Amino acid sequence: MVEANLTSPREAADALREADHPHDSLLVHFGPDKPLKLDAGVELAPFQIAYKTYGVLNAERSNAVLVCHALTGDQHVASLHPVTQKSGWWETMVGPGKPIDTERYFVICPNVVGACMGTTGPASISPKTGKPWGLEFPVITIRDMVRAQAMLLDHLGIGTLFSVAGGSMGGMQVLQWAASYPNRVFSALPIACATRHSAQNIAFHEVGRQAIMADPEWRGGRYLLDGGNPRRGLAVARMGAHITYLSDAALHRKFGRKFQDRENPTFSFDADFEVESYLRHQGISFVERFDANSYLYLTRAMDYFDLAADYDGVLANAFKSAQTRFCLISFTSDWLFPTVESRAIVHALNAAGARVSFAEIVTDKGHDAFLLDEPELFAIVRGFLDGAGKVRGLAAKS
Amino acid sequence: MVEANLTSPREAADALREADHPHDSLLVHFGPDKPLKLDAGVELAPFQIAYKTYGVLNAERSNAVLVCHALTGDQHVASLHPVTQKSGWWETMVGPGKPIDTERYFVICPNVVGACMGTTGPASISPKTGKPWGLEFPVITIRDMVRAQAMLLDHLGIGTLFSVAGGSMGGMQVLQWAASYPNRVFSALPIACATRHSAQNIAFHEVGRQAIMADPEWRGGRYLLDGGNPRRGLAVARMGAHITYLSDAALHRKFGRKFQDRENPTFSFDADFEVESYLRHQGISFVERFDANSYLYLTRAMDYFDLAADYDGVLANAFKSAQTRFCLISFTSDWLFPTVESRAIVHALNAAGARVSFAEIVTDKGHDAFLLDEPELFAIVRGFLDGAGKVRGLAAKS
Repeated sequence: MVEANLTSPREAADALREADHPHDSLLVHFGPDKPLKLDAGVELAPFQIAYKTYGVLNAERSNAVLVCHALTGDQHVASLHPVTQKSGWWETMVGPGKPIDTERYFVICPNVVGACMGTTGPASISPKTGKPWGLEFPVITIRDMVRAQAMLLDHLGIGTLFSVAGGSMGGMQVLQWAASYPNRVFSALPIACATRHSAQNIAFHEVGRQAIMADPEWRGGRYLLDGGNPRRGLAVARMGAHITYLSDAALHRKFGRKFQDRENPTFSFDADFEVESYLRHQGISFVERFDANSYLYLTRAMDYFDLAADYDGVLANAFKSAQTRFCLISFTSDWLFPTVESRAIVHALNAAGARVSFAEIVTDKGHDAFLLDEPELFAIVRGFLDGAGKVRGLAAKS
Repeated sequence: MVEANLTSPREAADALREADHPHDSLLVHFGPDKPLKLDAGVELAPFQIAYKTYGVLNAERSNAVLVCHALTGDQHVASLHPVTQKSGWWETMVGPGKPIDTERYFVICPNVVGACMGTTGPASISPKTGKPWGLEFPVITIRDMVRAQAMLLDHLGIGTLFSVAGGSMGGMQVLQWAASYPNRVFSALPIACATRHSAQNIAFHEVGRQAIMADPEWRGGRYLLDGGNPRRGLAVARMGAHITYLSDAALHRKFGRKFQDRENPTFSFDADFEVESYLRHQGISFVERFDANSYLYLTRAMDYFDLAADYDGVLANAFKSAQTRFCLISFTSDWLFPTVESRAIVHALNAAGARVSFAEIVTDKGHDAFLLDEPELFAIVRGFLDGAGKVRGLAAKS
């Protein structure tokens, strides 16, 4: 295993090179002797994981918090993003004095397998061919992501995590952690998530995948071979997905039917309405930092995720040996992963006799609320970790 | 004005030729002396309207029912579609003995301006250039569609409609009819609609438009000049829109997480889940019968529709002189045009002192319920028209 700390910034145009040579990240390389055993029945080796850490691991190695990122997130959770030069995606939650307090906890955030920011994925160079994997990369699952993260923790010498936290696809990983490694998870914070995708969830993802694959630039997934990029298809996918991250009420509050820089319609196909302009911007800025094939792989992993199915259809069985303390959080206006999904998890945890608390936060911000400034969310996470910290014997903040 | 009844079937491959030479349709041609005055401030002339009729106009000319079609509908409401060879889109509602009973009423269904089934639209040949209009076609509005329909009724010698009925974009036309021509509408049936698009509605349409315009085959809207067709983009647009027509519950009931023809995932990007296969089919079959530019124009017309805005923001003012009897219908699981939108119309009609009844039908079928087998919908429409027919002096069915 080789480790490197790469810190120089890169041009946005080179963003997809992050796939092999990530910046501002730690890197661990697993050789042919340490394959990642995938659910698809194949082994991925060699492979690498890019990750960030914040704070200091204590002498007892008992204060590690794993943060799992969502579909389009990455390891840059609480520091400047090397491609976009924007703040980390969860700086409101993670940092000194924040709810996940880096003065108390040692925070680890790895880029997931299949992504494009340094952990091995379809944009990485395949050791067999010396060319980007593209669709030759094996299809991965949420369980594969978690299995790789466990290898990272082994490498770091961390047995039990004080906590695992994440929203959306990150929440799926949290649930998989508690199911796969119940003895390694002292507490768990699955936020705005579900144990499986609904038909509607799958349908939205499929439209996004079709938008990418319909772009002639995609070329069967081989676009990186000649420097191409299905930017238009990926932008359309992002635009469609973005609608599902916001509530109808949030879109109404932000944009309503307001025209963009004018009083009246143009009677054209320009972005007349502010919401059109906003969505176009979301699409365009996304393609600067994300790989289209990674989008295919990660949406597929989310669609495949079905935790109960791995336990004969009985979700409670996924948690039956869990000593983990759970805190589930949902948002009233989240229609991608509505509260009913979190409630079903709570019922299963109750049936399994697990320790669980649950909060449904009233907000009109939709699914994206977990990423936004939600004081109640911060208070709940802080309180839950404080309580668990006392049990775990972590010193209160001085 | 020239009229023709074209009856021979066509090949599906020639579907877009329907734009100028529609089959199994009646056709009225308005010459340069009869321009359609558009909201965009220009005049469309010459232009033509393709339409279908069912039943017989009575001697008093008092039994005409105008049926307004939705975004992807057309004039083939109750008879075989000349391109798809499938049944009419509202055969459950319109026909002998059906709720809109063609043994009692004279049903007229015109293809809207901007569409592609015989009424002038972007796929039609521009008289100026001798080539398809493409994006040179003026942007049209719901009010323009209704204005053209009023010209058709003038041509047919029909002063007052016994009723105007339609769902979704059809319902928008119904509302516009009652507002623009209150004395020509004896009764009105706006179903599953709204007086304006929400920001979320606009957002979904914008993603569809971007999917079309992202397809290199679209070529700035000039694809018909060389026989091209942005099929992939249009299919993606249709797939995304189709999700909004169904409820989460309906998708779950129909497909759940069932795999397509297999027990386990393929670990590939094939259509593993039934819902994926279904959506792909929806996309592919749609492009056989619909013009991509028409899709841009009609979605734009829906986005622009804002009935209250035309009356200083006071919706009740749109109906203040209406003697029309209204029956509004919404569906509990319709999240595209939720019941709250219909309720707002009812409140405005109440404020205007109009006669109005309103039914919210409990169903899990979503927005598309207005097109499906919904016995309560049929009973309400039949009862409402029966009651209005008595007042109008239409003989009860023998």
